[in-house]
Amino acid sequence: MRILILGGDGFCGWPTALYLSEQGHEVAIVDNLARRAWDIELGANSLVPIATLNERIVAWQELAGKAITVHVGDLQDYAFTGQVVRDFAPDTIVHYAEQRSAPYSMIDRQHAVFTQVNNVVGTLNVLYAMKEFAPDSHLVKLGTMGEYGTPNIDIEEGYLEVEHNGRRDKMVYPKLPGSFYHASKVHDSTNIEFACRIWGIRSTDLHQGVVYNVQTAETKRDARLSNRYDYDGVFGTALNRFCSQAATGHPLTVHGAGGQTRGFIDIRDTVRCIELAALNPAERGELRVYNQFTEQWSVQQLAERVQAVAGTMGLETTIDHVKNPRVEREEHYYNAKHTKLLDLGLQPHLLTDETVRDLLTMAVEHRDRIVLDTIPAKVNWR
Amino acid sequence: MRILILGGDGFCGWPTALYLSEQGHEVAIVDNLARRAWDIELGANSLVPIATLNERIVAWQELAGKAITVHVGDLQDYAFTGQVVRDFAPDTIVHYAEQRSAPYSMIDRQHAVFTQVNNVVGTLNVLYAMKEFAPDSHLVKLGTMGEYGTPNIDIEEGYLEVEHNGRRDKMVYPKLPGSFYHASKVHDSTNIEFACRIWGIRSTDLHQGVVYNVQTAETKRDARLSNRYDYDGVFGTALNRFCSQAATGHPLTVHGAGGQTRGFIDIRDTVRCIELAALNPAERGELRVYNQFTEQWSVQQLAERVQAVAGTMGLETTIDHVKNPRVEREEHYYNAKHTKLLDLGLQPHLLTDETVRDLLTMAVEHRDRIVLDTIPAKVNWR
Repeated sequence: MRILILGGDGFCGWPTALYLSEQGHEVAIVDNLARRAWDIELGANSLVPIATLNERIVAWQELAGKAITVHVGDLQDYAFTGQVVRDFAPDTIVHYAEQRSAPYSMIDRQHAVFTQVNNVVGTLNVLYAMKEFAPDSHLVKLGTMGEYGTPNIDIEEGYLEVEHNGRRDKMVYPKLPGSFYHASKVHDSTNIEFACRIWGIRSTDLHQGVVYNVQTAETKRDARLSNRYDYDGVFGTALNRFCSQAATGHPLTVHGAGGQTRGFIDIRDTVRCIELAALNPAERGELRVYNQFTEQWSVQQLAERVQAVAGTMGLETTIDHVKNPRVEREEHYYNAKHTKLLDLGLQPHLLTDETVRDLLTMAVEHRDRIVLDTIPAKVNWR
Repeated sequence: MRILILGGDGFCGWPTALYLSEQGHEVAIVDNLARRAWDIELGANSLVPIATLNERIVAWQELAGKAITVHVGDLQDYAFTGQVVRDFAPDTIVHYAEQRSAPYSMIDRQHAVFTQVNNVVGTLNVLYAMKEFAPDSHLVKLGTMGEYGTPNIDIEEGYLEVEHNGRRDKMVYPKLPGSFYHASKVHDSTNIEFACRIWGIRSTDLHQGVVYNVQTAETKRDARLSNRYDYDGVFGTALNRFCSQAATGHPLTVHGAGGQTRGFIDIRDTVRCIELAALNPAERGELRVYNQFTEQWSVQQLAERVQAVAGTMGLETTIDHVKNPRVEREEHYYNAKHTKLLDLGLQPHLLTDETVRDLLTMAVEHRDRIVLDTIPAKVNWR
C-alpha cells in the first residue's frame, strides 16, 4: 500500500512511518518540522535525544533496508500539498500534521489563531488535493477524544441515534471541545464530513485518546530512530509527564481534584490502529469515526500508578494537587465506546507496571536533559 | 445603549444600524467594505443603486439628525479590532462581518479557505477583544439556520435534550452544514460556546433564516439610504432573486425538485430581532441560541407565490427546474422551532402579496441595471 504520512516527523507520525514501512508498505513523509521549532520557541526539548529527520531516514535505510521518502513543506501551501499528493499517488493519507497541544493553543490570541488556521487550512488543502489528484484515496485523519468533552451520557463512536418528539435520526455526535486546539479538530471533523458528503471522499476520523509510552519495536532498534519524549507543561501528556516528574524528584502535578477521566492508548497501539484503518478503507463518501483508545483512567489514578511503580524503584514521589490551569470538570461521568478498532483486530497493549517502569527508566537515564523550568503547566485557560 | 455593528455596511448590517440609531441607541459601524469588493470581483451589482458608506452616513445625519461613526478596517487585524472595541466601549456588539454566501465559499479552494479564515479569525479576534477590553459587553452574533442542515427530527433552538442508554444531558444541537460557508458558522458557534464557557463572555447566537425583502422604514427615507438588493447567483437569495427574475422575464430558477424547505424572515424583522437580543442580554458565561426566522417555505412554494403575484401585475413568468448545483436533500422533513424571539416580543411581518409586489415593483423599476450573465447559479458544489 502507498501511504503518505502527513506530520511524519512527530511523536505519533514517526513511529507510524517506521511501523508501516516495516510492514512492507511504501511510505512517504510530509512534514514542515514545526514540532521541532515549537521546542525552540518554548525552550523545551525531548527527554530522549532525537536525531534530525534526515538522520532518521538514513538510519532506517541502513538498518531495515527500506526507503522512506521525505517532503519538507507546509500543508497550508497548496502548490506543495497538491504536488505531493499528485506525485506520490497515495492509497492512504494519514494526517497527523496539526498543532496538537491544547495549552499551546491557549497561550494567547496569536497561538489560538495560529492553531485554528494551521489545522483548518491544512486539512482543507488536503481535502482539495484528494479531490483533485487522488479521489479514490482514503484519508485517515487524527482527531481527538477531546472533541466530545465530558457529556453526561455515553460517548459513541462519532454518531448518535437520537429519538426526539417521536421521530428518529442518526446524527453527528454533539461536540464540546475544551480548548481552541480541540475546537480546531471539531472544525476539521465538520469540514471532512462535508467533503465526504459532497465529493465522495473516503475518510476515517480517529478520535484518539491521550497517547502514552514512547518507543515501538522499530524506534528501539537504534538511538537514531528514537521517538521523542515530551515532558513539558505544553506538549507533555499525563502518564509520560508523571514518569519524567518522578524521575527528577518533582512532585506529580495533578490538576485540581484529578477526577478528570480520559481514554488512553499505548503508542504501540496507535501505529497498529493506523494500519488497521488503512487496510480497511472507508467507502466512497463515507466518514467513519473510530474512538482510538484502549482504557479509561482518571488523572489521579495514573498519578497513583506511577507513584507505586516508582516506589518499587526507590524513587520517592509525592502527588501535588495544583490549581487547575484549565477550565474543565474535575469530577464527571465518562463512558466512551471503543469497539470498532477491536472489531478490526486490534489487540491492545493495556497499561502494565512494566510499561510504567520502562518510562521511568528512560526518564531516569536522561534526567540531566530535563529543563526544570518547562515542567509546570503555566498556560492558564482564563 | 452603545451598539457596535460589525459589518454595518452590508445587506443586514446597514438597515440594522439605521434602525438602532432611530431607536435612540448610540451606533458605530465597523466594516472593511468587502461586500462591495465582491460585487466587483463577480461583475455583479445591487439591483437598487446604493450610496457609498460615507454618503449614507452624511444622509442619515442630515435626515435624522443622528450621528453614526464609522471605522473602516478588517476584523482579522487585531490591532484595529481591539482598539475599536476599547475606544467605543460597547454594551452590545452585533457581528454581521462575515463572508455570508454559500456559493461564494464553493467557487474554489481559495474561496473556501478565504471564507473560513476570514470568518473564524474575525470572530476569534472579536472574542479576544471582548475579553481584553469589554468583558461585560454582549455579543449578538449572526449565525445561520443552515448550521443545522435538514435533520429528520425537529430543530430546536441551539440545544437538544438527549436521553441515551438511560442517562440524560442537554447537548449542543448536532450540526450538518451544507457548504464551507455554513461550516464556518458552525466553527464560530463552537468557538463562541467555548469562550462563553471559559471566559464568562455573554453571547446570543442568532441562527438566522433566509432574509427577504430589502427596505425598512429607515432605508426608504432617501435614495441615499437605500439598502442593497442582491439578485445574482452568488449573493442573491431565494425570494428576492425570484422577484428580480420575474421582472426581467427570466424563468424563475428552482434548483432541482424545489422541495428544499427553509426558514425565512423579512428584513424588517431582522433589525427588530437584533434590538430584542440587545435589550435582553445573555448572562455572563451564557450562550443563547435563537432561531431567527418567522415562517417556513419550500423553494417551490416561493416560486409559485412570486409567479402568482407577478401575474396580477401583467408579468408572465415560468418556473424552470434547473439541475441543482448544490448537494442537498430536495425533499425532506423540516420543522424548526422559533419561539424565543417571539417570547421577547417580536411581532413578525409574515410574507404578504404586498411585500412580493413591492419587490417586483422595485425590480421592474431598476431592471435595466440587471447584469443578465450573473443571474444563473453557476457555482457547482461537486
